[in-house]
Amino acid sequence: MRALFPGRFQPFHKGHLAVVKWSLERVDELVIVVGSAQESHTLQNPMTAGERVLAIRRALEDEGIDLRKVYIIPVPDILMNSAWVAHVRTYVPPFEAVVTRNPLVKVLFEEAGYEVLEPPPFGREKYVATNIRALMALGDPKWEEMVPRAVAEIIKELGIIRRMRELSKRD
Amino acid sequence: MRALFPGRFQPFHKGHLAVVKWSLERVDELVIVVGSAQESHTLQNPMTAGERVLAIRRALEDEGIDLRKVYIIPVPDILMNSAWVAHVRTYVPPFEAVVTRNPLVKVLFEEAGYEVLEPPPFGREKYVATNIRALMALGDPKWEEMVPRAVAEIIKELGIIRRMRELSKRD
Amino acid sequence: MRALFPGRFQPFHKGHLAVVKWSLERVDELVIVVGSAQESHTLQNPMTAGERVLAIRRALEDEGIDLRKVYIIPVPDILMNSAWVAHVRTYVPPFEAVVTRNPLVKVLFEEAGYEVLEPPPFGREKYVATNIRALMALGDPKWEEMVPRAVAEIIKELGIIRRMRELSKRD
Amino acid sequence: MRALFPGRFQPFHKGHLAVVKWSLERVDELVIVVGSAQESHTLQNPMTAGERVLAIRRALEDEGIDLRKVYIIPVPDILMNSAWVAHVRTYVPPFEAVVTRNPLVKVLFEEAGYEVLEPPPFGREKYVATNIRALMALGDPKWEEMVPRAVAEIIKELGIIRRMRELSKRD
Amino acid sequence: MRALFPGRFQPFHKGHLAVVKWSLERVDELVIVVGSAQESHTLQNPMTAGERVLAIRRALEDEGIDLRKVYIIPVPDILMNSAWVAHVRTYVPPFEAVVTRNPLVKVLFEEAGYEVLEPPPFGREKYVATNIRALMALGDPKWEEMVPRAVAEIIKELGIIRRMRELSKRD
Amino acid sequence: MRALFPGRFQPFHKGHLAVVKWSLERVDELVIVVGSAQESHTLQNPMTAGERVLAIRRALEDEGIDLRKVYIIPVPDILMNSAWVAHVRTYVPPFEAVVTRNPLVKVLFEEAGYEVLEPPPFGREKYVATNIRALMALGDPKWEEMVPRAVAEIIKELGIIRRMRELSKRD
Repeated sequence: MRALFPGRFQPFHKGHLAVVKWSLERVDELVIVVGSAQESHTLQNPMTAGERVLAIRRALEDEGIDLRKVYIIPVPDILMNSAWVAHVRTYVPPFEAVVTRNPLVKVLFEEAGYEVLEPPPFGREKYVATNIRALMALGDPKWEEMVPRAVAEIIKELGIIRRMRELSKRD
Repeated sequence: MRALFPGRFQPFHKGHLAVVKWSLERVDELVIVVGSAQESHTLQNPMTAGERVLAIRRALEDEGIDLRKVYIIPVPDILMNSAWVAHVRTYVPPFEAVVTRNPLVKVLFEEAGYEVLEPPPFGREKYVATNIRALMALGDPKWEEMVPRAVAEIIKELGIIRRMRELSKRD
Repeated sequence: MRALFPGRFQPFHKGHLAVVKWSLERVDELVIVVGSAQESHTLQNPMTAGERVLAIRRALEDEGIDLRKVYIIPVPDILMNSAWVAHVRTYVPPFEAVVTRNPLVKVLFEEAGYEVLEPPPFGREKYVATNIRALMALGDPKWEEMVPRAVAEIIKELGIIRRMRELSKRD
Repeated sequence: MRALFPGRFQPFHKGHLAVVKWSLERVDELVIVVGSAQESHTLQNPMTAGERVLAIRRALEDEGIDLRKVYIIPVPDILMNSAWVAHVRTYVPPFEAVVTRNPLVKVLFEEAGYEVLEPPPFGREKYVATNIRALMALGDPKWEEMVPRAVAEIIKELGIIRRMRELSKRD
Repeated sequence: MRALFPGRFQPFHKGHLAVVKWSLERVDELVIVVGSAQESHTLQNPMTAGERVLAIRRALEDEGIDLRKVYIIPVPDILMNSAWVAHVRTYVPPFEAVVTRNPLVKVLFEEAGYEVLEPPPFGREKYVATNIRALMALGDPKWEEMVPRAVAEIIKELGIIRRMRELSKRD
Repeated sequence: MRALFPGRFQPFHKGHLAVVKWSLERVDELVIVVGSAQESHTLQNPMTAGERVLAIRRALEDEGIDLRKVYIIPVPDILMNSAWVAHVRTYVPPFEAVVTRNPLVKVLFEEAGYEVLEPPPFGREKYVATNIRALMALGDPKWEEMVPRAVAEIIKELGIIRRMRELSKRD
């Protein structure tokens, strides 16, 4: 069975990694959908889709996850919820299930007839992307403990922290 | 060095595969950009982006190419040539060069300051996507010899031939 | 005279029905424009355009309104207020007036030279779409009294209440 | 059962009317989808969506067809065939089948799991929209015999012939 | 009176310049609308909107035309003819007339209630943008005589000839 | 050197005028980019792009600024920050620098390799567009002192105050 795991991954944190591992114990192949691919350079969405693809890829390699079992595919938004499943389906190989806890994603895929796999709330209280981004914008290094080691490295290498600190300045 | 290899890959044929191998002798990582990602279900563009991603992936695996050196990323069209390079750049990891023989792609990436690597015209006379699609629509099995074995299999498995034969009927 | 009556109709309530009746006493034909047609599956816009068209149609039939005097036409948003009147005009038969109390709609149609018919604020304090949607999301059946009987039936038949309750869950 | 009947209806001719009648003998309700709604003012697509809605409505009334069994809904194009069914579905009430002879429409709805009803080729050799438009642009009144009487009247009333004759002039 | 003069100006030639002069004898201010602003880097549309703005500006200055009487404003396409006038109107100061010989432009502005000023066919047989572009792509310097001197200079300075020669190569 | 000065100019106020003058002491030509060109008829964005172009033009003329050194070019939004610089570049003549104090604009142009010229915060406490628009919507004439005289005149002439007062009414 092939399943989707959609998210914005701004950034890809340890909770996301736990979901990937949990999923790979249940499905043959996992398609990580990097959503809102067109967004970047804001405090809410600091990284480009390509930067997120790179960070996820490095994290998976660093964790020794078999890349032959994973696809990482950026998908831009479409401003029509009722066509979103069909839109995503265009960008990815055929799949049978979706891994998500998000209410909107669940409703849309259920109405489209897909199976929904709900992962446990891995470290939900600790790994919250909003908090991680707030620390990044403040330049507080505590964000580094919340993401896989390889993600922290690539984020620093790509200059994302400097970008976020600039973006958080006043006009 | 990381390089892009953009194409529509309708379908991914033996000439494309030769370019991938040629590129991987020259660069560290190759990003295969599956262009016109929004197109499908026409005789000119029969496969969805996700179907093309799957076909390319299977071909690379079948050829024993190291997946850690390759990214396969679908990118939709943007109706503005002068912003196309920046648009593509959003979807992919940072890169320094582009592998192409296409005049428009060359002009756009050169004007944007990228290095262009021009591969030899591998089997240009034999592997022409337009001809391959014509054979597919006719149901003539000669198309199978023009694509990597794994691509032929996945195309049949996905029902692309049946789709093309239906699409070529008269109203 | 033919007039437009634009709204989002999320959902079509008794105040809307009163406006339709008021209008049909003043004009020969009424075009009900179901706006923001691309929106659905959110707490703010739960129903698809087609579901809203169906609900309105059933309400009009149930009330014995002559369907030959009414058009129900979904229109998606255009992100340009100054071209919105021309955009709407494309989707509907020629018209001379617009029925509205909305300040933006009034300004845009007045600047375009159309007559504006301002209906009385029918049950404004009782029939507020925001409140109706809040009750629907809570599963509180009081919303049913605020919409025409046929609308309540079709909303339940289409599973809109279940959809809204799912959407209002936490991640 | 509710079924869709999609077309561009540039203009709605006697062959289209025959399909509507044929369909209403087989389904409870018919949704006439006026496609390419955004197109108008060209020789290929002379009428706006609203003008086409009006022409179809008048033809149905003139033929004594019960309007309670028919929906006429304009739908703009989406540049993604694989999401087109979901896009159309947003604009219309729930349906189970589609009435069409068009190969692309058939493939897309079949892949989406809908039943396809194929009507006979009513007067295919006589009622060809391309020919009708050519006569209209030439100002040759023979086009009038090819469309329902009410359509001919509304086309003349709306000034479509004059528009087409202007558009066919040389720069 | 203020009037529009819409065109693609690929490139701005001596016929266009004659229309500008003819117009400025009849109206107080002229708004030159550089249409299809999103197009560039093709043989049909080689120059970006900004390059065309620059070329027109230089030509007007070189001819001693008072810049206080002219606006040069790029406008992207909108894929909806019936909303095009409203779309253009958004980008430009209020105006009363349009200068054009193009049938579609005439029909659209006349239906919107604007006055149409039809200029004489200045050197129609000599100054044809299609022919000028063909000469440019061939590298034949005869194109230079067909455009104002300042336009020829800026085209060479911007590297447009080299771009067109590259674009006209075979894959 | 040619530089860009991007803004929304809702409306163009005395602080903006000071930046234009400051820039023209440092660069040869200034391109005033009227951003969010597609927005209008809201309290946040009351004026169309064309109305803003007209207001800026009148202000520059009234101040005796040489129009041969200035371009005023409307540019619509693109929903992709990482492609925004390339998008803007399409609409304007070639340039080397950008005049801005906006953090996002700085980050985007710096990442694209452009020089950023940061003007002093001219009358920052006095000339705040948000406050000016609030006064305009209230009908408080104090806004007139905050914009160049010619801008105040054209705003009144175009009926912008009346439009804003209408838009600020309750439904």
